[in-house]
Amino acid sequence: MAQLVDLQASATDQWAPLLAARTRLGRSDAIRDILAAAATPGVLSLAGGIPAPESFPVAPLGRALDTVMSGYPTQALQYAPTEGVERMRAVLATMATATGAAVGTSQVLVTSGSQQGLDLTAQALLEEGDLVALDDPSYLGAVQVFRRAGARLLAVPGDSDGMRTDVLEQRLAAGARCKLVYVVPHFHNPTGAVLSAERRAHLARLADRYGFLIIEDDPYADLAFDGSRLPSTDVHTDRVIRLMSLSKTLCPGLRVAGLVAPEQLVRDLAGLKQGSDLQTNTLSQYVLAELLQDPGFLPGHVSRLQALYRGKATWLTRLLRERLPWLSFQEPRGGLFLWCTLADPRLTADRLYPRALAEGVAFVPGTPFCIDQDGSALMRISYAALDHTQQEVAVDRLARAFAAETEKARTP
Amino acid sequence: MAQLVDLQASATDQWAPLLAARTRLGRSDAIRDILAAAATPGVLSLAGGIPAPESFPVAPLGRALDTVMSGYPTQALQYAPTEGVERMRAVLATMATATGAAVGTSQVLVTSGSQQGLDLTAQALLEEGDLVALDDPSYLGAVQVFRRAGARLLAVPGDSDGMRTDVLEQRLAAGARCKLVYVVPHFHNPTGAVLSAERRAHLARLADRYGFLIIEDDPYADLAFDGSRLPSTDVHTDRVIRLMSLSKTLCPGLRVAGLVAPEQLVRDLAGLKQGSDLQTNTLSQYVLAELLQDPGFLPGHVSRLQALYRGKATWLTRLLRERLPWLSFQEPRGGLFLWCTLADPRLTADRLYPRALAEGVAFVPGTPFCIDQDGSALMRISYAALDHTQQEVAVDRLARAFAAETEKARTP
Repeated sequence: MAQLVDLQASATDQWAPLLAARTRLGRSDAIRDILAAAATPGVLSLAGGIPAPESFPVAPLGRALDTVMSGYPTQALQYAPTEGVERMRAVLATMATATGAAVGTSQVLVTSGSQQGLDLTAQALLEEGDLVALDDPSYLGAVQVFRRAGARLLAVPGDSDGMRTDVLEQRLAAGARCKLVYVVPHFHNPTGAVLSAERRAHLARLADRYGFLIIEDDPYADLAFDGSRLPSTDVHTDRVIRLMSLSKTLCPGLRVAGLVAPEQLVRDLAGLKQGSDLQTNTLSQYVLAELLQDPGFLPGHVSRLQALYRGKATWLTRLLRERLPWLSFQEPRGGLFLWCTLADPRLTADRLYPRALAEGVAFVPGTPFCIDQDGSALMRISYAALDHTQQEVAVDRLARAFAAETEKARTP
Repeated sequence: MAQLVDLQASATDQWAPLLAARTRLGRSDAIRDILAAAATPGVLSLAGGIPAPESFPVAPLGRALDTVMSGYPTQALQYAPTEGVERMRAVLATMATATGAAVGTSQVLVTSGSQQGLDLTAQALLEEGDLVALDDPSYLGAVQVFRRAGARLLAVPGDSDGMRTDVLEQRLAAGARCKLVYVVPHFHNPTGAVLSAERRAHLARLADRYGFLIIEDDPYADLAFDGSRLPSTDVHTDRVIRLMSLSKTLCPGLRVAGLVAPEQLVRDLAGLKQGSDLQTNTLSQYVLAELLQDPGFLPGHVSRLQALYRGKATWLTRLLRERLPWLSFQEPRGGLFLWCTLADPRLTADRLYPRALAEGVAFVPGTPFCIDQDGSALMRISYAALDHTQQEVAVDRLARAFAAETEKARTP
């Protein structure tokens, strides 16, 4: 990956001496460079975690915007409470209750995307040296936040049922004291795994016994190909902070998410949020509240979403099995991602990546997602962004890159 | 103030042991409680720093929204770069250049309001124990951010020309080593002072000599009653971070602001922003870019704004001088605030406040804004929110509260 990372010669940077240590820490971000490269014109990207634009409910959102701007524009353009617009909090409480324990409005904090919910939680709870357990591999945005908060990471292996809670329990029994356990319970990024009902219950028991909080970051929950969904771990314990993103269910650009937690924690997190950005966009909150208050909207929209991604995943996985037999992966059940293993031990995803980019196709090599485990044979592929024709071209380009790298590996 | 602050009995809070020290630090926020009390139905509020809703450009914003939603809706609802939508960055660079040094797009970071610009700057630059100089009194949101970042505060007195840069220089010459100097250069909150041209140049020379950065937080610059505006200190030095809010110029609810800084710092701040909230609301950025790209829009809108606030300020100051002669203040030249002194030494603003609230009028007592100086005889009054009739009723209520408190002070 070294060639992709811009290390930004700090010797020539006059501002570097002024920076806090944590800032220098964040300077090289491999994923950011990869996604920037993937956005090069002409490159077909299987890299991003970006939802399909054709999934956005443009017309209903446009009508909700009209309702707000013709009905109460000055209220929607004014400051609003840090905790969130009351109607948006109520809508999110209803959505949370439908998929987990009963939740009141005062247990909801509206955040500027789930990333902010994660960052506020880390700021509120973590002191230098605190231990955070998470899947290995994990979502990079979470790893970045925990590291910057000074946390030590306890990487827990997983399988297709998600985090191995039995391994977590062994570590806890052996003395590891986690403050937080971070999970992406449905269609994990990058692995696609779903944390099973048994492991959810087990994790909740461990939280109660060992006193940690569970962060449940669940942006892909609505994207099950069969429409199924498991309840939140908050049906088993109140030691849960739920991050309810709307980025994949509706669209990412409005940056409105819900954080659900015990009421006192919501108050503390709101205090931090006030210093952070005062409040989340008022107009977007009212628009989304209008949209989601309509009981007829969400079920139909989610069904269409599920059909859309099921179609894309079916098409791409068929192409991959036919034309890239050297790549193995679990059949996806939802979400946006395939977590793939390169079968040829002479090849690594890091070496394949620049060649693929030269052929005009991008993916994300596995290494940046991995904490303790070796990710060199792993790669993340998203079926979300491209249409069927583009997927076919992308797979052929990937096959050419693979052939060229295999040839190179064979030549002494 | 003690009776207004909810100290939230942490003894009964099972989550308290999990919290980081900085979270407990932020638990009691006097201003927040005051603004909540000011929002009680029936209370006329002179307390908030909230712009007049009739100042919002509702129709032009509605047209810009239509342009975006009918022209390129999926782009406006999708993820966007952390640094900001290119067109919004370009618009902000043009606005910055018109009011300071020439600035390129790469020197602009779009933030979720200026509060986020301030928070990111503090996170990026401050380590535990670093010194930050700022006006005494100062904007509370800034004090909160600096304190939470672990900074020590160097309170610098001011007068109607803003921060006493001669006093700052004495402190620097005596060995104080500031990393940041925070100023609100036009119509300071709460004092209303404008940092003079001479002091801007002086502050810039000090920045170059002592190596600190100037944070120029300038949300009220467009609200000069005579339409005048002084250039940014960045015409004198590149050691400046400008925070360009649109909350008072357009409206606060869209949470889009510009941070202007040297390019390398913008990159570092963007790295932190990515972990904080990924990016600012995409739709709002495109809508504001559409609106501000129209060269005919802003000058006329700003003239109307200035006339609106001039009218409100003229009316309120006349009422105050006629009916509250025990209150003294500088004649305002712009912005939203009057910084008032109680003439009667037996009265304090903290004691007047609950009585005023009981009479149905709210203001903000001076104490929370003050760092080293005694704020007990000081209070902040805003002329922005209320119309002329409401202002008249509010002043009469304030007069009644004053009379009652004076009577009480006289009775042994």
